[in-house]
Amino acid sequence: MTDEHEITPWNVSDTFQEAQYERVATEFGAKIIDEPLKYEIKELAGDLHRFIQYGIFFAHRDLDLLLDGYRKGRKFYLYTGRGPSGKMHLGHLIPFIFTKWLQERFNVDLVIQITDDEKFIFRDSSREDLDRFTRENIVDILSLGFKPEKTHVLIDTKNSGLLYNYGIQVAKHITASTVKSVFGLKDSDNIGKFFFTSIQSVPAFIVSAITGHNVPCLIPYAIDQDPHFKISRDILPKLGYDKPASIISKFIPSLKGTGKMSSSDENSGIYLDDENRTIKKKLMKYAFSGGRDTMEEQRKFGANPDVDFAFNTYRMLEPDVATASKIYNEYKSGQILSGEMKMIAYEKIVDFFEALNSRRDSVSKNMEDYMFSPDRFL
Amino acid sequence: MTDEHEITPWNVSDTFQEAQYERVATEFGAKIIDEPLKYEIKELAGDLHRFIQYGIFFAHRDLDLLLDGYRKGRKFYLYTGRGPSGKMHLGHLIPFIFTKWLQERFNVDLVIQITDDEKFIFRDSSREDLDRFTRENIVDILSLGFKPEKTHVLIDTKNSGLLYNYGIQVAKHITASTVKSVFGLKDSDNIGKFFFTSIQSVPAFIVSAITGHNVPCLIPYAIDQDPHFKISRDILPKLGYDKPASIISKFIPSLKGTGKMSSSDENSGIYLDDENRTIKKKLMKYAFSGGRDTMEEQRKFGANPDVDFAFNTYRMLEPDVATASKIYNEYKSGQILSGEMKMIAYEKIVDFFEALNSRRDSVSKNMEDYMFSPDRFL
Repeated sequence: MTDEHEITPWNVSDTFQEAQYERVATEFGAKIIDEPLKYEIKELAGDLHRFIQYGIFFAHRDLDLLLDGYRKGRKFYLYTGRGPSGKMHLGHLIPFIFTKWLQERFNVDLVIQITDDEKFIFRDSSREDLDRFTRENIVDILSLGFKPEKTHVLIDTKNSGLLYNYGIQVAKHITASTVKSVFGLKDSDNIGKFFFTSIQSVPAFIVSAITGHNVPCLIPYAIDQDPHFKISRDILPKLGYDKPASIISKFIPSLKGTGKMSSSDENSGIYLDDENRTIKKKLMKYAFSGGRDTMEEQRKFGANPDVDFAFNTYRMLEPDVATASKIYNEYKSGQILSGEMKMIAYEKIVDFFEALNSRRDSVSKNMEDYMFSPDRFL
Repeated sequence: MTDEHEITPWNVSDTFQEAQYERVATEFGAKIIDEPLKYEIKELAGDLHRFIQYGIFFAHRDLDLLLDGYRKGRKFYLYTGRGPSGKMHLGHLIPFIFTKWLQERFNVDLVIQITDDEKFIFRDSSREDLDRFTRENIVDILSLGFKPEKTHVLIDTKNSGLLYNYGIQVAKHITASTVKSVFGLKDSDNIGKFFFTSIQSVPAFIVSAITGHNVPCLIPYAIDQDPHFKISRDILPKLGYDKPASIISKFIPSLKGTGKMSSSDENSGIYLDDENRTIKKKLMKYAFSGGRDTMEEQRKFGANPDVDFAFNTYRMLEPDVATASKIYNEYKSGQILSGEMKMIAYEKIVDFFEALNSRRDSVSKNMEDYMFSPDRFL
């Protein structure tokens, strides 16, 4: 049995470990992505994204059914999101890198929900900070190279009319008991928290609601968001919509080890606006290493790349799986030292940030083109 | 001590009696409208509306302070509302008759909130029915003769963007415990119900929020709505706004006796679209009478006009207090018989409905002129 509320969107237990992912996912009612499903994804997408190969996206709900429909000609759309509570770090971009791949390979629309209302309700953020982070985070995300034609950024407070009107349809089917048991909310929590999951459910059927056709939805998300979408899956059929499918990732390990990266600790992640020397310092000083304590031991026994922040970060950013595999083996066997691994990761991160930065100006200038509007689906 | 949740916006105890009003109001923390306050209203308004003289509007919160400010040149605005759950009956118009008087005498803006979202969340009304009742109810209300220049009809689902964005500011300060204890909500209730009071608080500060000036708000309402505004008064100062003042009415007795008129029982009230013969039939057949069982007894002992539906309805629609007082005495002394009283009321109602009907076409054509828009306050 999962510890009570071990994982909710607002809390992840400190004791949560890598080994617990599969147990938690299946206890949540999700399925592990198995070999036949990997084969199916590969067939339809052309290849298998490295995040699936590496087990970062490791579980799903009804992805097999969704792909079955897709094979028969039934287009779906993607929905993912971001709570703009602060600056973004590298780990925050991981699901978006994967989502972009899905969008391109399946040539589908993508709705990106920015839950600035959630951050207002759940945190002590000022409206000014939320507006700034909302804008900055959107630029960060879109700089990955999303195509405006099929990308729809839905800022909650800018679309609150639509979201509230659809949200009350959802809310009508969710009791306070349910949100208490699913999210661990208490009577001492504010009523905005109680209501919020209704708003997060809306993008899972908004394209169907707008177009009047039942368009299936696939939601890539990290496992802590699962409670929201478990509820969406319960409610949507009651409103006449399909259950959304999902593809679920692990958390991106923090610099200092496993668990969910903390937004409050500057040194727990590499921020997208970190200067090169800061990135280097964070890697050298704080990054959790799978290497040995001394060079001699490292040469003799090798490292454990699986728990190594630098290696994992490098691997996520290296599109070529064979190259990453070679580094893995060399690091594991002791050919590559811990400091060398950190420098390999450093170069990769710097390149990745440069590519992001090269797109920022254009994205900032054309933000409006990416914004959600019902008209764009009609 | 008030019975638990004897009066909430969604439930009024069957055992609730006239004698309990003052106790409930003061237990809720409101004050009875006393002679000095009546004097003050009369001074500022030019006269004292009969509904105050008759004790229909009988209690208040901070009305004295609001009028003190008004005397010193501080304009306020009025806020009242209607849940469009069905056709309107005569009783539903009573607070609007009074509000119109306030609006005219003090020459102030009036926001009329139509809580179609509330009725969606709390009842099994279809969207189609709600849209129809919303339109019909608005025409009914406006046909009383409100001036479009200072009247602002705020339909919740048409203004949900604004309401949700301001509503979450309110929601952040209200716990689930509070709405449970104030409204009698339970964990088995839907989360839309938990959230809703936030939306009903917004019009109490919306003019201040839009204009950036702290404009005091006066809310006329029936006592069952008090829980909402008790919460508004707690929260608004935390958001930097004044506590809203209020002026509180008793329920309009149903045809069949005291208590709140039921919307589900066609014969519990006289509907605005009832034909003349239906009105006559309802009065003759169902109206609770304060008269005696036989003509002889009535002539000898007289009636009790205070509990008589026909007399009370007549009195509410008769602008001349002296005339109504004469009828009161004649009915009480037995000069007027019960059937005669019903016919006097009947004539009054028919005249009133005719006046309403004469304005319907013009109101229907010009509905847009009355609609709420932030621009109209800037």
